[in-house]
Amino acid sequence: MIAERHKAALVEILGAKGVVEDSAGMAPYENGARYDQGCAALVLRPKNTAEVSACVAYCVREGIPFVPQSGNTGLVSGSTPDASGAQIVLSLDRMTRTFELDADNRSLHVDAGMRLSDINERLAQSGLFFPIDLGADPRIGGMLATNTGGSRFLRYGDVRKNALGLKVVLADEAGTIVDLMSGLRKNNTGVDWKQLFIGTSGAFGIITECELNLERLPRQVSTAYLVPRDGAEIIPLLHLLEERIGSYLSAFEGMSRSAIGAALAHVPSLRNPFQNGDVPAYVILVEISRTWAPREGEQLLDAVLETVLADIWEIEGSPLADAFVGPAHEMWSLRHALSEGAKHAGRLVAFDLSFRRADVQPFCDWMKAELPGRFAGVAILDFGHIGDGGVHFNLVVDETRAGPVDDRFEQQLRDWVYSVAVDQFGGSFSAEHGIGRKNQAYYDLYTQQKNKDLAADLKRLTSPGSVGSVRFG
Amino acid sequence: MIAERHKAALVEILGAKGVVEDSAGMAPYENGARYDQGCAALVLRPKNTAEVSACVAYCVREGIPFVPQSGNTGLVSGSTPDASGAQIVLSLDRMTRTFELDADNRSLHVDAGMRLSDINERLAQSGLFFPIDLGADPRIGGMLATNTGGSRFLRYGDVRKNALGLKVVLADEAGTIVDLMSGLRKNNTGVDWKQLFIGTSGAFGIITECELNLERLPRQVSTAYLVPRDGAEIIPLLHLLEERIGSYLSAFEGMSRSAIGAALAHVPSLRNPFQNGDVPAYVILVEISRTWAPREGEQLLDAVLETVLADIWEIEGSPLADAFVGPAHEMWSLRHALSEGAKHAGRLVAFDLSFRRADVQPFCDWMKAELPGRFAGVAILDFGHIGDGGVHFNLVVDETRAGPVDDRFEQQLRDWVYSVAVDQFGGSFSAEHGIGRKNQAYYDLYTQQKNKDLAADLKRLTSPGSVGSVRFG
Repeated sequence: MIAERHKAALVEILGAKGVVEDSAGMAPYENGARYDQGCAALVLRPKNTAEVSACVAYCVREGIPFVPQSGNTGLVSGSTPDASGAQIVLSLDRMTRTFELDADNRSLHVDAGMRLSDINERLAQSGLFFPIDLGADPRIGGMLATNTGGSRFLRYGDVRKNALGLKVVLADEAGTIVDLMSGLRKNNTGVDWKQLFIGTSGAFGIITECELNLERLPRQVSTAYLVPRDGAEIIPLLHLLEERIGSYLSAFEGMSRSAIGAALAHVPSLRNPFQNGDVPAYVILVEISRTWAPREGEQLLDAVLETVLADIWEIEGSPLADAFVGPAHEMWSLRHALSEGAKHAGRLVAFDLSFRRADVQPFCDWMKAELPGRFAGVAILDFGHIGDGGVHFNLVVDETRAGPVDDRFEQQLRDWVYSVAVDQFGGSFSAEHGIGRKNQAYYDLYTQQKNKDLAADLKRLTSPGSVGSVRFG
Repeated sequence: MIAERHKAALVEILGAKGVVEDSAGMAPYENGARYDQGCAALVLRPKNTAEVSACVAYCVREGIPFVPQSGNTGLVSGSTPDASGAQIVLSLDRMTRTFELDADNRSLHVDAGMRLSDINERLAQSGLFFPIDLGADPRIGGMLATNTGGSRFLRYGDVRKNALGLKVVLADEAGTIVDLMSGLRKNNTGVDWKQLFIGTSGAFGIITECELNLERLPRQVSTAYLVPRDGAEIIPLLHLLEERIGSYLSAFEGMSRSAIGAALAHVPSLRNPFQNGDVPAYVILVEISRTWAPREGEQLLDAVLETVLADIWEIEGSPLADAFVGPAHEMWSLRHALSEGAKHAGRLVAFDLSFRRADVQPFCDWMKAELPGRFAGVAILDFGHIGDGGVHFNLVVDETRAGPVDDRFEQQLRDWVYSVAVDQFGGSFSAEHGIGRKNQAYYDLYTQQKNKDLAADLKRLTSPGSVGSVRFG
């Protein structure tokens, strides 16, 4: 419920097209990609930074809480309104106008509402791309606000490493626009303020424009599935690949048998690529790529990969039990279907964890040994970015299990998994999904008091208004 | 001059070995690498984070200003005391104990006082290295505090991109230790506080330990000198290399004839590598490298580079006028001698600028056209990291010129160059040297008021004590 005078004032700022108030129109903005059914007071759809500023200034002055929303593909309830009906959604989905490519600089100035897929489609003919590879198709503002990582982090890093400049609107009474736009790669002239807004879910300000580092599109890509002799051989295998083919290595992704099984069962378009349909206990998708097209006299990339794998295979006590090179598109389609598979396998309790690289497998092994005794009827469908220590540790609860399957049960499960991951294995409770209502409690629990205090102080200095779904401090 | 009771208290904290008070002993800490002759009240040499904390707490409580100093190789007077004699130097040069390699994670925990060369020597047998390539040999704490970039930024990024975790001592009355140590690559759980301490010269806190991302050492390296047809062809040439050999490209460094000439004249160990000794107007040092050793059936890397350059040479209207592949060590030794050459060429007024990549050459051309008319008797010895937009724009003043050569003249020259670089060409007045007394005035001039205010607020929140040589806000 929102007062008519507020509605009228906001229509005045944005025009009728910029304000959504009917429940059918608001529904897509209220519901999260996986969890959440929130309730919005209103949805605002500004077209540019100036309109964002005007909306924000109005909301802050009038004390109306609001949540910035980008592609709404997040998994931590960072961009959806809560159930109160009091929060406005400030959507960036009409902010798609600016698209200024500086090919010489390998950089791109875009509005925050542009989708990742649109960016890369429009860039394709320039031979450049924005190198963050994700299963979802978010808008760039949200990618910055959560600092997404993805499957090619090993080569290109995360969004933070590829952000050159930002424009930000602070949630203060003026809707102050902070211009941190820059196309410079080297610029050390004081505090790098853009870092404050990256990965903090809009709490310190709303990113409305950005300049991105671009990379050259690979012209050759080869992929293989590798089967390690056992879990302890995964890291030695990664070592060997980093040493023998490191300059080409662009992904090293792990997939457990259970995760693959769920994808094969629930995503009909997939075919089982393994001999006799026998899925190995653990499979690694390795990708290598290079920027140039095949050159005369040079081995094709598939052959390079085959040679390297054959060499590793022949090492005395090789970490490799099996390996086969196959079409990249097909191999990735299984990898990208794992999340969808897990979603359909039962009641999903998902964790986005990260560790030092060598701790991923020990954590998963420990869980496989300990979980059944503590939480019966819960299956582990893990897969992850082994090359950078990330793991999507998905638990699927058999709803026919003895004992309750309710929010309290889920809560106990979450508390326990996070405590093992963070306290026992020194990991992170949010590798690449960022912070939102969904994991706020774990921010509160695992963040040092000094850091919480600083965040609270900084929030007061930058964006004292009620913005976003996270409470810092 | 410092009171005896302070000296006694600090000796109590650090032991006699940790306190230097004789002028011969203090001299190396008082004089900068290129500029500066400061005067220290005392030099403190703590051995570990706890001792740093105790010193800092004492200084803050007693109101004694102090300047943290790492390798003292900086060029902006960021780590030396001023001439007042009131500032203590807090040197990190005894903090070299911790060296914990996690090869599986490709990361290293070290104390802030470890030298870059020591880190890489100790890492060599692991096949890993810390990939920031600099002419100087700083200690790692200072590299973090200035966010150094260097010659292989194009491949590996700057220090910021390779910092996983930090330990920091705040300049407050408790000498609060903030533990931001982490070996995680993906960790999005709120504000990434370490970003605040990177590149800010110690003003917000003193970095005492860190965990660094390591990369795999190249096993093959090839280099070539390229001569572009003219300045306008440098970026097209870079494009072609990024496209045709991008996965191997690790440096694209520009050297002007005047910079090369000064190095050849003043660094006796160099030999002139150009035919008949004729130095071209502009030379690019390109380096490619790959992680693996030569493999049977695979072209050697020198041959790959030769092939690619020959292909580019044959393009209709090729941007290339000449090119030759040569030994990496020799080719780099000229590049690394440019700074030394400039230093001996006359009174040096050095600028560390950066631009969008395509603006580097237009800026230099503009300067070459305009400078003589405004400041007679000043030569331009420019060289730089064209691949990332950085340029070391060195001016050498002929001291026999008509007209004065004094600080006022230098000041006018600086003001004018910075104003052209920043206002006219949208560049940065400090690409990779950071901020110190030397360029404080330009921070004050070119930083937006809102950002200055935020920095001042943040300083009060984190390190209210008088630390470092920069004033933020």
